[in-house]
Amino acid sequence: MKRILVTIFCLSLFFGSFAQELANFMGSAPIVSPEITNSGITFRISAPYADNVKLNGSWGASVEMTRSANGVWSVTIPTPTPELYTYSFNVDGISYNDPANVLMQRDGTRYLSVLLVPGEATANYFEATQRGNLSQVWYDSPTLGINRRLFVYTPYGYNKGTTKYPVLYLLHGAGGDEDAWSTMGRTCQIMDNLIEKGLAKPMLVVMPNGNPTQQAARTTMLPEVPIDRNAPNYDPNGYVNSIVKDIVPYIESNYRVIANPNSRALAGLSMGAGHTISCTNLYPGFFSYICPLSNGIRVTDENKATYEEQFKALKKAGYKLYWIGCGEDDFLIESARTLDATLTSLGLKHTFYVNSGGHTWTNWRIYLNKFAPLLFK
Amino acid sequence: MKRILVTIFCLSLFFGSFAQELANFMGSAPIVSPEITNSGITFRISAPYADNVKLNGSWGASVEMTRSANGVWSVTIPTPTPELYTYSFNVDGISYNDPANVLMQRDGTRYLSVLLVPGEATANYFEATQRGNLSQVWYDSPTLGINRRLFVYTPYGYNKGTTKYPVLYLLHGAGGDEDAWSTMGRTCQIMDNLIEKGLAKPMLVVMPNGNPTQQAARTTMLPEVPIDRNAPNYDPNGYVNSIVKDIVPYIESNYRVIANPNSRALAGLSMGAGHTISCTNLYPGFFSYICPLSNGIRVTDENKATYEEQFKALKKAGYKLYWIGCGEDDFLIESARTLDATLTSLGLKHTFYVNSGGHTWTNWRIYLNKFAPLLFK
Repeated sequence: MKRILVTIFCLSLFFGSFAQELANFMGSAPIVSPEITNSGITFRISAPYADNVKLNGSWGASVEMTRSANGVWSVTIPTPTPELYTYSFNVDGISYNDPANVLMQRDGTRYLSVLLVPGEATANYFEATQRGNLSQVWYDSPTLGINRRLFVYTPYGYNKGTTKYPVLYLLHGAGGDEDAWSTMGRTCQIMDNLIEKGLAKPMLVVMPNGNPTQQAARTTMLPEVPIDRNAPNYDPNGYVNSIVKDIVPYIESNYRVIANPNSRALAGLSMGAGHTISCTNLYPGFFSYICPLSNGIRVTDENKATYEEQFKALKKAGYKLYWIGCGEDDFLIESARTLDATLTSLGLKHTFYVNSGGHTWTNWRIYLNKFAPLLFK
Repeated sequence: MKRILVTIFCLSLFFGSFAQELANFMGSAPIVSPEITNSGITFRISAPYADNVKLNGSWGASVEMTRSANGVWSVTIPTPTPELYTYSFNVDGISYNDPANVLMQRDGTRYLSVLLVPGEATANYFEATQRGNLSQVWYDSPTLGINRRLFVYTPYGYNKGTTKYPVLYLLHGAGGDEDAWSTMGRTCQIMDNLIEKGLAKPMLVVMPNGNPTQQAARTTMLPEVPIDRNAPNYDPNGYVNSIVKDIVPYIESNYRVIANPNSRALAGLSMGAGHTISCTNLYPGFFSYICPLSNGIRVTDENKATYEEQFKALKKAGYKLYWIGCGEDDFLIESARTLDATLTSLGLKHTFYVNSGGHTWTNWRIYLNKFAPLLFK
């Protein structure tokens, strides 16, 4: 509780000092938003000419805001359960981010204001004391024929000493890019906290871009390089192959890491879970830790035999962990259940972690918190 | 011209493909904004209930937008001179970023939509073919008593070979943070392009946070650590000392760089120019390349003797380049002129580059393009 109060205090200082700067800049009374107090969270926005202003937050239903005499609209809501939320204002029908809040995240092409409510559940989403570094790294992908960008988290202490580290390769979903896990997923903060608390082994986390036509996130303005799916040499597994043939070799020859299967983990959410399953099925024995999140497999008459063959090969090659995470309200829960049942029927040891909630970053952050401590042990 | 057309084509592809995704997401006709064509640039925003919508861009005066039947407001402007511009919409009195544009920049606490008009003047602001990496790095600052973050650009090829590189330390202005030069300043793109064209020597660029109370940019949510200016051990040069005592030693012991004055450059804009001048005056001979941008000195009866003594010591210690850049409309041009005159009167060889324009990122990007090729030669 003390830590929570301290954090709330720090957040108040933080928002307060920002508000002061805004006031200096605008030469008017500062607008503080969001303001976290013991009685709730107050949101404010200046919209003197608006007829109707609402607050839309990922914590629940839309709420009406009230206009004050000076044209500032506000509303105070009960503090929601500790979580990282996104929100926006709806001002006369258009969605509007909070101009008084410096915390913003980009989900693919959309920007949203961020509210991080402190508490036990979100403690690992704040900066730890011992912090690792994050690098934006360009590498050649001969498999895809383009130069591409990935993000690399190196743990606290990597710069010193001669220790070699294991590596988690962490894949995003459709609509995301190499930026997704480190921003919306708060990967650096989660890993820093888990490692500092002794709960996870120090490891590198490599976050590639899973869209094979993209050189990098669209914010780089690099054009996409279209793939001709009718070309004779078109390989539907191009991206998955590039993980094993381009990304892992690049990391293992450029970073101080342990280059063997027992020191390689592959995890991914949604589309990235599909990549994880495909990759570990196509390259059995290459990754000893396998964590598909919020997705599974769809078994049809056509692919049933292939899946069986691949999973049997994986069982034979051996692995240390197969950890499936999915929310029971996730629209892909059935595919995760099918994966669970298939592994069970074929005798592949695994964990099927089902929690509440859906296809959300709330769950993907929870899963990273859950499975990272199980890696490389 | 061909290159410009190709770039425009690529941008169209880029914005076009984004618009398609938005359409899929929203289940309605896509809004493309900004749309660059041969006849100008069209901006669009859906605001069905608004009475008045304007476009505000850093290229010039505010312009009225026109409502179409479906509630989408639009305006086409003549393509402005190639430059990196920021813009926003004013919808019934409130400022609103372009939700159809994934390009956004943060200036301290404010976010603004970005328009990068291609052309010869902006060629170096786009990604080069050979790209260096950018890292967010935590380091201890014993001088300031906190753990802090800086950004490090390592040039293309740094990962390979055993070459040792020189280092440019590049400082931001008031209101900025360690993120400013790499985003608004487009430092990585400029350095990549200059190096690829053979115009600048391959070098590291280190971009620290110049606010001594900040551990890192506010987007990390780390609280500020106040400095007691009345404390007996308070040092008004704390941050400047930390550059020489903490930052340079950290870089020189953690990166493959050349650790001597002839391989160290210090440059900074506005407040960072003040830091540059203070630092090179307090530590003559430590940096051989000195580039204050958009600021200079204010000589008073009280500080005149100190400045003279410091500049004479700097002259005696020796340096390779003293490059001052300032716009003639800059509100700090007089201080730059005073610096120029003082150096002249004391016989310190230097360059005073005066161009048009004011205290803007447009100029700071231009200055980096100008002085980076002069370093370490």
